[in-house]
Formats: sequence, C-alpha cells, structure tokens
Amino acid sequence: MRLPEAEGLLADLASRMRAEVGPETGLVGIHTGGVWVAQRLHGLLGSTVPMGTIDIAFYRDDFARRGLKPDVRPSALPFDVNGRDIVLVDDVLYTGRTVRAALNMLFDYGRPGRVRLAALVDRGGRQLPICPDFVGGFLTVPNEHAMLLLRRTDSGSLELAMEEDVGGAA
Amino acid sequence: MRLPEAEGLLADLASRMRAEVGPETGLVGIHTGGVWVAQRLHGLLGSTVPMGTIDIAFYRDDFARRGLKPDVRPSALPFDVNGRDIVLVDDVLYTGRTVRAALNMLFDYGRPGRVRLAALVDRGGRQLPICPDFVGGFLTVPNEHAMLLLRRTDSGSLELAMEEDVGGAA
Repeated sequence: MRLPEAEGLLADLASRMRAEVGPETGLVGIHTGGVWVAQRLHGLLGSTVPMGTIDIAFYRDDFARRGLKPDVRPSALPFDVNGRDIVLVDDVLYTGRTVRAALNMLFDYGRPGRVRLAALVDRGGRQLPICPDFVGGFLTVPNEHAMLLLRRTDSGSLELAMEEDVGGAA
Repeated sequence: MRLPEAEGLLADLASRMRAEVGPETGLVGIHTGGVWVAQRLHGLLGSTVPMGTIDIAFYRDDFARRGLKPDVRPSALPFDVNGRDIVLVDDVLYTGRTVRAALNMLFDYGRPGRVRLAALVDRGGRQLPICPDFVGGFLTVPNEHAMLLLRRTDSGSLELAMEEDVGGAA
C-alpha cells in the first residue's frame, strides 16, 4: 500500500496545532520518532520552552515479556512539569499503551496542568481510552501485524515505512 | 441550571453499549458513583462476568496535597484481568485524572487485552488525552468550580446533583 508523505502530514499537524498551542507550552517527544516530530514542531510553532524527550522503554506494560532493550535512551525534561501545559508528541498512535506509559513517566516528574497528545499518524486500533488532540492524518493499516514507523533520511526529512512486526504492538 | 435525569442518561448509555459490549466483558465501576452505574449496566447488558470495583483514593495524583481520605474503600476485581476486555465505568467524566489513576490500578492487577471507558455524563474540561468510548450525555457546566455528582436515592434510583467544589477537581 502507498503510504502518505510524512512531510505533508507534519505540515498539516503543525497547522492544526498553531492556534491551540502557545510558545510556553512544553513539547515532549516520545523516543524515537516522536522526538523527530517534536523537534520539527518546536521550530514550526515558535516554542520558547526547550523541548523535552521521553523514553518509555522501562515503563511499557509488557516490559517483563520483552526484556531489557539494550538501547535505552535517557529521558530529559528541561522544564518544571508542575502546572505546565504540555503536549506529548508521538509518531504513530496505535494501541495507546505507549502513551499511557509516557503519561506515567511525565507524572513521575510532577503534576502537569494539562497534557494534550499530538500524533503524526493515527492508525486506529486503540486498546485504551486514549485519544489525540492533534493528528497529522489517519491511516488504515489492513494488516494488524504490520508495524508502521517513522524514519529519518540522511537529509533530515521524515518518511513513513511499513515493516513486519516482530515484537508485539506498541 | 436544570440537570438532566440520570435514569434517562443511564438508559441511553446502556443502549449505546449494548451492541459493542459482550457478556464476557468485565465491567469495573469507579467508586462511588461509577459503581452504582456499573451495577445497573451489569444487569441491563446481561453481563455474565462478576462486576469489579475500583477505589482510586490512593492513586490520585494530588494524593499528597489532599491527604488520606478516611473513607477509603477496597478495590475488588473478581476476574483475571490478563487479556480481558474491560469497560471502566465512571459517573461524571471531567479532567481525566481519575481515569488515569483507575487505569494504573487496573494494570497493577494484570495486562488487560483492551480497556474502554463509559461515563454517565461527560462534562468536558479534560486535562489529559483521555476520551470515553460510551457516554450517556454531555453537560456543559458554566462554573468550573461547581462539582457535578451522582446520588442514589432511598429507592435506589440515580440522580445528578451540583455542589460547590471544596477540594479541587477530580
């Protein structure tokens, strides 16, 4: 199947966020693809707060089943979470389990005033009552074992790719 | 302001759930009002799985600020959570913080296959990216400090009431 252009989705996502997300809002990208999207949004939306990143490898609800990932990256929230307006940024929204884990990680840092969710692509298939506030686009993936993911090319542009899922859905 | 009839909302909620929620789905009511709603739904939907209850008093993100509530009720999930299709039931959906706490409590018991959310009333004002799958009705409450709550009369019927909020929004 033909995948949509990630760069076009990113432009659409930014335009939907522009009127609703102020420069003081903290953008927090979820590793890895969400960080790339958040980096781009940070510039497109003129954010004045440094961007945060979150790695949910240790917080996943199937952590025990999957074992320790050798490439765990550190989380970094370079602002006070307490009372802050935050937008979590993910690349592909699917079951919602990753977002639940990211929310818990955020709340370990403090008590945000509000947390909204932005995703470059919503592929449906939610298993938790989690919903995005901002979406670049929707994509129906006929094969539930297909893993939709974001890649970054050598030139820095983003593109969507489809792979066979080998480790369970996120 | 005139509040809608809780019994009418309950009938609407049940009719929306009927085609989507099977008899094997585990209903889990959130104390206190959500338990009353779940009890009624359990009968209306012909559930064959015993109903669960959850008390999130210890899990609230403002627990330290509010201190220990003297009336903490036990949680009881009389079924195996692992892999199960579950519907969390709340009375009034507001910021979403209660639901986040209830989800964490559920996941302490196991890894559900899917969790959906039913609420008798959605009053808006979400502070987390949480959304209901089933709603009895929507209600715009002009005063954000007003607390909308569910009561049970001596005859067992449900009714909505509005009170001044004294302890912060749930």
